[in-house]
Amino acid sequence: MAVSFNPPVRTLMGPGPSDVHPRILEALSRPTIGHLDPEFVAMMDEVKKLLQYAYQTDNELTIPVSAPGSAGMETCFVNLVEPGDKVIVCQNGVFGGRQKENVERAGGSAVMVMDDWGEAVDLAKLEQALEQNPDAKIVSFVHAETSTGAQSDANGIWELAHKHDCLVIADCVTSLAGTPVKVDEWGLDAVYSGTQKCLSCVPGLSPVTFSERAVEKIKNRQSKVQSWFLDLNLVMGYWGEGAKRSYHHTAPVNALYALHESLVMLRDEGLENAWNRHAQNHQALKAGLEAMGISFLVEKSARLPQLNSVMIPQGVDDASVRGRLLNEFNLEIGAGLGDLAGKVWRIGLMGHSSRPENVIFCLSALEAVMGEMNAPINKGVALTAAQAVYSA
Amino acid sequence: MAVSFNPPVRTLMGPGPSDVHPRILEALSRPTIGHLDPEFVAMMDEVKKLLQYAYQTDNELTIPVSAPGSAGMETCFVNLVEPGDKVIVCQNGVFGGRQKENVERAGGSAVMVMDDWGEAVDLAKLEQALEQNPDAKIVSFVHAETSTGAQSDANGIWELAHKHDCLVIADCVTSLAGTPVKVDEWGLDAVYSGTQKCLSCVPGLSPVTFSERAVEKIKNRQSKVQSWFLDLNLVMGYWGEGAKRSYHHTAPVNALYALHESLVMLRDEGLENAWNRHAQNHQALKAGLEAMGISFLVEKSARLPQLNSVMIPQGVDDASVRGRLLNEFNLEIGAGLGDLAGKVWRIGLMGHSSRPENVIFCLSALEAVMGEMNAPINKGVALTAAQAVYSA
Repeated sequence: MAVSFNPPVRTLMGPGPSDVHPRILEALSRPTIGHLDPEFVAMMDEVKKLLQYAYQTDNELTIPVSAPGSAGMETCFVNLVEPGDKVIVCQNGVFGGRQKENVERAGGSAVMVMDDWGEAVDLAKLEQALEQNPDAKIVSFVHAETSTGAQSDANGIWELAHKHDCLVIADCVTSLAGTPVKVDEWGLDAVYSGTQKCLSCVPGLSPVTFSERAVEKIKNRQSKVQSWFLDLNLVMGYWGEGAKRSYHHTAPVNALYALHESLVMLRDEGLENAWNRHAQNHQALKAGLEAMGISFLVEKSARLPQLNSVMIPQGVDDASVRGRLLNEFNLEIGAGLGDLAGKVWRIGLMGHSSRPENVIFCLSALEAVMGEMNAPINKGVALTAAQAVYSA
Repeated sequence: MAVSFNPPVRTLMGPGPSDVHPRILEALSRPTIGHLDPEFVAMMDEVKKLLQYAYQTDNELTIPVSAPGSAGMETCFVNLVEPGDKVIVCQNGVFGGRQKENVERAGGSAVMVMDDWGEAVDLAKLEQALEQNPDAKIVSFVHAETSTGAQSDANGIWELAHKHDCLVIADCVTSLAGTPVKVDEWGLDAVYSGTQKCLSCVPGLSPVTFSERAVEKIKNRQSKVQSWFLDLNLVMGYWGEGAKRSYHHTAPVNALYALHESLVMLRDEGLENAWNRHAQNHQALKAGLEAMGISFLVEKSARLPQLNSVMIPQGVDDASVRGRLLNEFNLEIGAGLGDLAGKVWRIGLMGHSSRPENVIFCLSALEAVMGEMNAPINKGVALTAAQAVYSA
């Protein structure tokens, strides 16, 4: 017979969810009110403004989709892609492949620009694809590839895309609030993210933002959006301005309390301070890992500070290490995906997980577990190397 | 500047969300763990078993969709309807209209069987439609119309549909756990519900269940499901049996803690006891309202105990009464939708809201507010009438 579920208390340093701050968990559990209650509607307006800040945008259509990041992705594609539309999809990891799936299921055709996993999107290849496909209407890419930890040049992609009169869809699931995401400055037209990464909120919502150009396209579609639940023409009626909201679906009220709280905390910390915090903890983790003799998958220039893909030392069994970290240390780190399975670990330093405590704890646990396995690592040097970054 | 949001403490007696039990809010705020953590995966298995109990089914594919009821609806339609499929949609309120939208957006054609709002689905009309459309593949209907409070004969609809070799899709958003929903006994092939009604959980998830016949159809589709996020062929890989789960999307971990807790509470109370509780509180509310002189929209035979649509007394201003109930009593009741706007109130007695305290409080608040407005109601009799039901 099932009884109440009491989860273990983990330290979450995988690719997400990240550690959730107690303030946010507490906000989550506040009394539920109606999704059309005037007090709730006023809170929704604050969420929109706070998200505009997080995304660095004035886009009016800046809202959380009432479902996880995958649904935010689908919201962008089903609203912007009409049957027959050609979309140039830049793929350099798992999530670019999902963009392709989304394009095709929306009736569009995808022209792929492929780069190796762990590399940034190659702008020269994108330019070539744009020149060869003058009828392309959209360019999509993953700003921060969660499967590899590589970051691409969003501003460079935008410049090329707009030169060829394409809209730009960007996956910022892992980048938002961890590394700069400047929607207006970079000219991105449709952006989706998740709450469970650098916002340190619980998983389940997907903040999205759409430029005026994108909204124009959505309002002037020839065909209905294939998804009723994700049709922004309808969703806008609920998330629109003013007190008059039309019922579309029942919003996940408590999850929105939590997102509101996490955004208030981000605003109070300040975006630049959050970016700097993520950068510093990354430097400390990197110093410790490199002192141990562990190297990074991604070139320094494209490395995401919040998601560290590192090479598993020769002869070390991936699953055993992760299993022992979880069972003996209550510490979760991420496995590799696809071709990188068994070859890399993905160590997340996202949101509330991006703290010196976590960096030191993770290095110490990794050293303890691998030390006992007689793995080929340098012992006794990682913590000092990490501490040196903090005291610099 | 936005600060932490502290919601007012409301009594929720609208069409949902309903009052959430403190145990469930507390479960919601337990520490987040990974969506692939073995402890979490074990809890997912319990959620499936508990949902099978709630739905009275052995269907293996019985899971919560990671998004609100509208997404559960869409999950049923996009997986079962293929382009060109003809679907007979029974509409007797708002939500049948949404089923039509879903059919059409999935590329199907909808044959409508229309009944007046507040009536149950007319089986004779359905039979006629089935005879006139021998190529129809699916029948869909709303078991408990949230817009009117009318309940339809699920078993009767199934008998007709199966005689004509059609699958049956049922909207049980408002019925699940409040009034009998017997998926296997009634032969329903695809059913969706919500967490924020008679399960008394927070809004944001949609429990669904699919028969073997339905799963067979999904596995043998000619075309891909148009939604990547809702494609059950992919979702099954994450919610499937055993320890090996393939990553599809990041599950809303904390919301699932809450659903688990609400289902444990339902199992501990017992389904029949829950149905009886909903029935008894309905009788008490009805006795009080009728003593006051307020009548019901729906015929007794089709009346849902958990959602009471009652006629607003002549000359009484809908919005003023609901506004005063909310502002002076922190009590939410529901407005009418569509043609019923301004004509009815929808008083919910769902889940944890289905309690004598709520019934007595609601009657007392309604009498106080309408009494001050000199509305044409009988005063001083409602509470006694309701109490008589409890002491019978």
